[in-house]
Amino acid sequence: MTSVTSQTRLVTPAPPLHPDVEVLAFLLGEWRGEGRGAYPTIEDFDYRDEVVFGHVGKPFVSYAQHTWLADGSPSHTEVGYLRAQPEDRVELVVAQPGGRVEVEEGTLRSGHFELASLAVAHTGSAKEVTEIRRLIDVDGDVLRYELEMGAVGQPRQFHLEAELHRA
Amino acid sequence: MTSVTSQTRLVTPAPPLHPDVEVLAFLLGEWRGEGRGAYPTIEDFDYRDEVVFGHVGKPFVSYAQHTWLADGSPSHTEVGYLRAQPEDRVELVVAQPGGRVEVEEGTLRSGHFELASLAVAHTGSAKEVTEIRRLIDVDGDVLRYELEMGAVGQPRQFHLEAELHRA
Repeated sequence: MTSVTSQTRLVTPAPPLHPDVEVLAFLLGEWRGEGRGAYPTIEDFDYRDEVVFGHVGKPFVSYAQHTWLADGSPSHTEVGYLRAQPEDRVELVVAQPGGRVEVEEGTLRSGHFELASLAVAHTGSAKEVTEIRRLIDVDGDVLRYELEMGAVGQPRQFHLEAELHRA
Repeated sequence: MTSVTSQTRLVTPAPPLHPDVEVLAFLLGEWRGEGRGAYPTIEDFDYRDEVVFGHVGKPFVSYAQHTWLADGSPSHTEVGYLRAQPEDRVELVVAQPGGRVEVEEGTLRSGHFELASLAVAHTGSAKEVTEIRRLIDVDGDVLRYELEMGAVGQPRQFHLEAELHRA
């Protein structure tokens, strides 16, 4: 509690998991893997992907992603929180350094959930994203996701997919 | 680069600061202090406050706040990113575990900036916040902020103030 280097603290399993997020326990921990990205307006790219889901005993799960390109340079990062709601509903809020925030909701079923954006908001300088859909599938120590995006005048379509393993 | 315990990495001054955020360099580092909160709908409270502003050499500054109540229990947390724009404009995006995201913009003047919410969006389960205003003032190694909030049917008014010192 003396340091604010907080992602370390968030994954320390000191407090018991809050009952409201027990259904999200399968996400907790550090995940590492590889992904690929594509979009009509950019070159295809591969990336190294690290994701941490943590908790502090409160009714939410923290989420942080960092990715790197093949040359080791930092690529994307995003941070946010997941909450679980009655009837297997899951809520995600995310902030992105390009000046975007997202509110997403979806339904959880056996380690699989899909999240669709209810709201996407931008700062004045951000690229315009209109719609996000995330498909996340966890099978034991393997996490796979796919992200579809509608942005910069393009309809929602494939943007990212990755496979990560629990570290 | 082998660990995703990332707040540590974000404050490691390995890469040079991106020129676009040199005007925000005065924020970088870890800050610790005390704050107090009040709102017509809740009891007044005091809190311990830790804030980290970091960077990875890209044109944004990461932001993470954690607070604790007097009994040591975790209270609030929020995460996001700051960007600097021409003509001393500053943009902030924030995600909060209660299911809220904020887009704020304002103007920077000599270590002082005010940010007003352009957009606040919520998940279905979140308490409704309609408006946020942040006043942040940095004088050397002292950071003071005040946060005004309009929420749950109340007009925008005082909610939080704190004084932090660079760790």
